[in-house]
Amino acid sequence: MTMPLGNALIGQSGGPTAVINQSLVGVLEASLAHAGVGRVFGALHGVKGILEGDLVDLTREDPAHFDRIAATPGAALRSVRKKPGADEAAQVVEALDAHDVRYLFYIGGNDSAETALLLLDAARARGQQLQVIHVPKTVDNDLMETDHCPGFGSAARFVALAHQGDDMDNRSLPGVKINVIMGRHAGWLTAASALARHDDGSGPHLVYVPERVFDMDAFLDDVARSMERHGRCVISVSEGIHRADGTLIGAGEERDSHGNVQLSGSGALGDLLSMRVKAGLGKSTRVRADTFGYLQRSFPGTVSAQDALEAREVGRRAVAYAMGEDRPSGSVVIRRAEGVGYRPEYALAPLENLAQKTRVLPEEFLRGNNDVSPAFLEWLQPLVGEIPQPGLLAGKRLSPRVSS
Amino acid sequence: MTMPLGNALIGQSGGPTAVINQSLVGVLEASLAHAGVGRVFGALHGVKGILEGDLVDLTREDPAHFDRIAATPGAALRSVRKKPGADEAAQVVEALDAHDVRYLFYIGGNDSAETALLLLDAARARGQQLQVIHVPKTVDNDLMETDHCPGFGSAARFVALAHQGDDMDNRSLPGVKINVIMGRHAGWLTAASALARHDDGSGPHLVYVPERVFDMDAFLDDVARSMERHGRCVISVSEGIHRADGTLIGAGEERDSHGNVQLSGSGALGDLLSMRVKAGLGKSTRVRADTFGYLQRSFPGTVSAQDALEAREVGRRAVAYAMGEDRPSGSVVIRRAEGVGYRPEYALAPLENLAQKTRVLPEEFLRGNNDVSPAFLEWLQPLVGEIPQPGLLAGKRLSPRVSS
Repeated sequence: MTMPLGNALIGQSGGPTAVINQSLVGVLEASLAHAGVGRVFGALHGVKGILEGDLVDLTREDPAHFDRIAATPGAALRSVRKKPGADEAAQVVEALDAHDVRYLFYIGGNDSAETALLLLDAARARGQQLQVIHVPKTVDNDLMETDHCPGFGSAARFVALAHQGDDMDNRSLPGVKINVIMGRHAGWLTAASALARHDDGSGPHLVYVPERVFDMDAFLDDVARSMERHGRCVISVSEGIHRADGTLIGAGEERDSHGNVQLSGSGALGDLLSMRVKAGLGKSTRVRADTFGYLQRSFPGTVSAQDALEAREVGRRAVAYAMGEDRPSGSVVIRRAEGVGYRPEYALAPLENLAQKTRVLPEEFLRGNNDVSPAFLEWLQPLVGEIPQPGLLAGKRLSPRVSS
Repeated sequence: MTMPLGNALIGQSGGPTAVINQSLVGVLEASLAHAGVGRVFGALHGVKGILEGDLVDLTREDPAHFDRIAATPGAALRSVRKKPGADEAAQVVEALDAHDVRYLFYIGGNDSAETALLLLDAARARGQQLQVIHVPKTVDNDLMETDHCPGFGSAARFVALAHQGDDMDNRSLPGVKINVIMGRHAGWLTAASALARHDDGSGPHLVYVPERVFDMDAFLDDVARSMERHGRCVISVSEGIHRADGTLIGAGEERDSHGNVQLSGSGALGDLLSMRVKAGLGKSTRVRADTFGYLQRSFPGTVSAQDALEAREVGRRAVAYAMGEDRPSGSVVIRRAEGVGYRPEYALAPLENLAQKTRVLPEEFLRGNNDVSPAFLEWLQPLVGEIPQPGLLAGKRLSPRVSS
């Protein structure tokens, strides 16, 4: 029988997701079940909690609540955005040592993978036994090495459903509708909006991601073409679209025709694009913009079942890897099994392959400068689950003034 | 057996909802089933479609698709924001006469009730047999005579769920979060955010509705108190909050410390409140704002089952009332049956009691200047359905530096 080699500690870091607590519970239940783990601690607000001694005893949690905690959005252990300096990293691993923590599970994105790597290096420098397992999460889906990231499927489902509803709204009251989607450096979540389409006429009619240089004139031409073809235009645009020199669209100072500074604040990009479209198409065109904001990463009730399942599983696997004979550190990644149909496989990748790196949409997932490819939608669908097919009237026209 | 007295025509008008097509299908299926109705027509884009002869024959729709159409957000017949002038009203009823339309079902809010009344008057002036039944819908819930409006329950459910997720997000990364909610003249939908609360510490911690005069200094005091008590503050605020003189907060010209004009555009109110909170609490406070926008009225997948059911039923009842012996016109309204538990009853109210009138939150549904009352939440709950109870860690603290 395995003897406990030490205690485990779990932290959550970065922007939360709708399923980040699935991973927390996955790590927790697998740790509690494994004889190789002694007690299981949680750090409140990630490394900040370790530094400040803000720790909780997860061994004393009631397993009867685990499923409900797992289904709740937001980080149950609270989160943090903090990269520890060299001194802080040394303090963190010293604190872990004092608590006999030999397994650190850090749930987060690419910044958190960097933190995990810094802590691993700090432990090695002290000659201290510590394994660091990074458990992936991010709605941005921008981690290297993994096919996709837990948290993305649910956020993508929210974005696709929102676009389906919004497209129906736009059919009702036609015009130009601009939706600004999260993802500063990669367009995965913006691209997911295209899953809302169900026929040739349905939106989003245009999709702009940061993987392409954004050209305002080309954009206005695109919108005009959509208005001509469909009488309306639903646009999904990443908050990270930028000029050839890398400067963000909408972030610079913009002046209206009166020379007033415009377009600061939370709706800046949507407002700028609206202003340009109105100037291009004329004031009579109905133009609206929404910035989806934090709802994308925290909305309960439309979670992707596959995403929830995988988020739980990466947590469990993290513990299984940590207990491996060679006592590895690394990041749990998801791969697609060969063969027909979607089936996830799991692996452990080196932390340095993920830390601070960004995976963008590959060329084969894009089509031109304003759309995604069918290959992308095929790749995406199993992660999001079924999107309900909307119902439309056949709408057989009545010839004018025909009596019954 | 009843002989058809004429044809029916259905129109949809104003901002769509997630369940407006339940009402469309309710009218359609009841009309098709009733011997008193001949053919059933649909006007595309409401009165505009009648004026321009843009009509469809709903008698030729496949009933196999009705349920799916009913479950789809947005107006299946397209919508319009148009108040017909006197000449136009005469043209509309003339066109209805030419198609032997004796029953006009108009699905919409208080502006649409006014249109219905104008058309009824125009028909009477011509001595033409026409019954006009207004079928209520609005996410704003601001119609007179009815306990609540179809469309509101589902929008309220979206707002409550969004706040539950957002509150969990804010627990993870504490700070001030401002959510701007639809409803310019009445605070029903903003107030619904309070249904997200599940314990003393949960948000929204502050709720501001247009039924109260908004005072910026009092607001900043409220926020400071919440920060002191909870270390964070989630705020739900109606887009319609205003000063004592009625001018909207955030709509005027606002200048930052450099004298630049700020805060125009889609996020203006949230940005203004953020700026004021930062100025009051200091730059180190994390402050974020989201404007929920069109998602509130069109999001599929979180529809309230009770709302969907009632939206269908007001459509069916509209036909039943139209077929009544006294051949009435009016608006279908919902009342609460006496007795224990929630049970809706239906009635027909005079159009003039609803047309262009706004029902605001009554005094007993408010508490102070920044909250709703328990009575409001009790009133609201059956319309929205169960909100899932979130799961939190017990979080038993570990004494600092205790080894296992």
